[in-house]
Amino acid sequence: MAVYTEVPDDELAAFITSYDVGELLSYKGIAEGVENTNYLLHAEKGQFILTIYEKRVEQADLPFFLGLMDHLAKSGLTCPTPVRDASGQTLRMLAGRPAAMVTFLEGLWIRRPQVRHCAAVGAVMARMHLAAADFQLRRTNALGVAGWRPLFERFRARADEITPGLAAIIEQELAHQETHWPADLPQGIIHADLFPDNVFFLGDALSGVIDFYFACNDALIYDVAVALNAWCFETDHSFNITKGHALLKGYQSVRPISPREREVLPLLARGSALRFLLTRAYDWLHTPKDALVKPHDPIEYLRRLKFHRTVRTAADYGWEAAQ
Amino acid sequence: MAVYTEVPDDELAAFITSYDVGELLSYKGIAEGVENTNYLLHAEKGQFILTIYEKRVEQADLPFFLGLMDHLAKSGLTCPTPVRDASGQTLRMLAGRPAAMVTFLEGLWIRRPQVRHCAAVGAVMARMHLAAADFQLRRTNALGVAGWRPLFERFRARADEITPGLAAIIEQELAHQETHWPADLPQGIIHADLFPDNVFFLGDALSGVIDFYFACNDALIYDVAVALNAWCFETDHSFNITKGHALLKGYQSVRPISPREREVLPLLARGSALRFLLTRAYDWLHTPKDALVKPHDPIEYLRRLKFHRTVRTAADYGWEAAQ
Repeated sequence: MAVYTEVPDDELAAFITSYDVGELLSYKGIAEGVENTNYLLHAEKGQFILTIYEKRVEQADLPFFLGLMDHLAKSGLTCPTPVRDASGQTLRMLAGRPAAMVTFLEGLWIRRPQVRHCAAVGAVMARMHLAAADFQLRRTNALGVAGWRPLFERFRARADEITPGLAAIIEQELAHQETHWPADLPQGIIHADLFPDNVFFLGDALSGVIDFYFACNDALIYDVAVALNAWCFETDHSFNITKGHALLKGYQSVRPISPREREVLPLLARGSALRFLLTRAYDWLHTPKDALVKPHDPIEYLRRLKFHRTVRTAADYGWEAAQ
Repeated sequence: MAVYTEVPDDELAAFITSYDVGELLSYKGIAEGVENTNYLLHAEKGQFILTIYEKRVEQADLPFFLGLMDHLAKSGLTCPTPVRDASGQTLRMLAGRPAAMVTFLEGLWIRRPQVRHCAAVGAVMARMHLAAADFQLRRTNALGVAGWRPLFERFRARADEITPGLAAIIEQELAHQETHWPADLPQGIIHADLFPDNVFFLGDALSGVIDFYFACNDALIYDVAVALNAWCFETDHSFNITKGHALLKGYQSVRPISPREREVLPLLARGSALRFLLTRAYDWLHTPKDALVKPHDPIEYLRRLKFHRTVRTAADYGWEAAQ
């Protein structure tokens, strides 16, 4: 939600001429994306998003992200497509930072998802998993189970400032995850952050998926666990099993979930709740109190974690034997 | 540079249906405008800016601002035009705040203005002054000479934190302005904030004027004085007399500057430098050091003020006897 890098107009105009998009008609910094600077560009040949990658994004990962979007778009998934310049490049430099231009997707993200949206998200996630299967680059999940403890150590001493007892709860859950995280799950490329603000709809039709900057190689079913957390809880923090059912059924309509994946779903749902609890707690403690960008509330994910600890089987998420 | 009010999509969709713009295709919060929340909307019938007015804008002033834009657009000036809903209203409520939708203007604002841009700005300002002459509403300039001392009193005690001696310089200039501010100048509606980021160009052609939220009734030539400050100084803080000449000549090509207006131009240029020095100094002292939105540097306007104090006549701004 910020423009970190201001681009002088003459520099931007020169940058644009190397793309086959016509004259630049307008550009606005957009207040979305905490990590990078994004401009919405209107050129004669269409609308585009220009992203300038800020320091929090590893430059070494950019070929993976841009290559993945290009690969998925070619596979028929509606996602931003990197635009090539006259020399065929998608990754460029602008204002001293790495930058890329991608196609603009129409659509609205759903602030209050309904059951039908959950079904659509499950299906598009499975399509993405299948479409990415033959993508050649790899990226380790920096926020996977191995990354959780190092992140926790960076704020452990202050965790109880958020709520008393938080450090102990996290420590306990971390130990549980580290002991039980399964090594035998089907792997592939996951989105890893498929929250409602990254999925666009036009009317009831899903019109696109955006923001692949957490995408990585990990267990495919972990992506489903993230989505259960992101889409199926109500504002009163209760889990909506009808939404869970729709999401799982939507996913399975494209890619069957194996018995082993189903078995570990409660564990991975706990794990993904822990992952967002950790990053939100860290951000909460490291954001100035008067900052314009308010950090997400970590307590929300503490509540989710506690819910998942009460879950015994995937049936509690809406899984039906008949599926 | 912020989105202060988040609008739920269903509330926005309902809001949009009362306008004849077709279905909503996308909307993005835009990172421009420190005072209000702005969304760029794409609907079937075009692009629009949706502004949600935040607390810093007086609600009582909104009919003036919206009415002025409507009046100027009807007079042929290219500026955002308020869109009327089915019942003919332009001022509405959304997410509990006053809100209005205006047409979107294509164009880029010029980060590094050249002489030709200054000429175009002078001319469009004069056209705006003439076009607004028969607008019926009035608004006092809250940041006019009478408003400067109360603003100064709010930070006088801390002014020297910005630079030693600043309080004394401001006090001296305030006294000078209060004594000499002329009461006999042609009055009208001025933009009062016609900085480069409020003027759009497509190529070399001026394509529109935006942001009328400081517009008010005051001396017309004061608007010219503001523009000399805003457009004709180089990044090394020197005044570019060629740009000043172009701006004055552009203005005069549409509306002649009277001998009395010419005479007081140096005084009003000092006054407008003081006005921006005051607001920037106040913001500088009241913005948290780690805020995402960096306040403008007040020292820039202290330098301009010092320059204007050395000016004897309008000739020093590029005025030519032959004009």
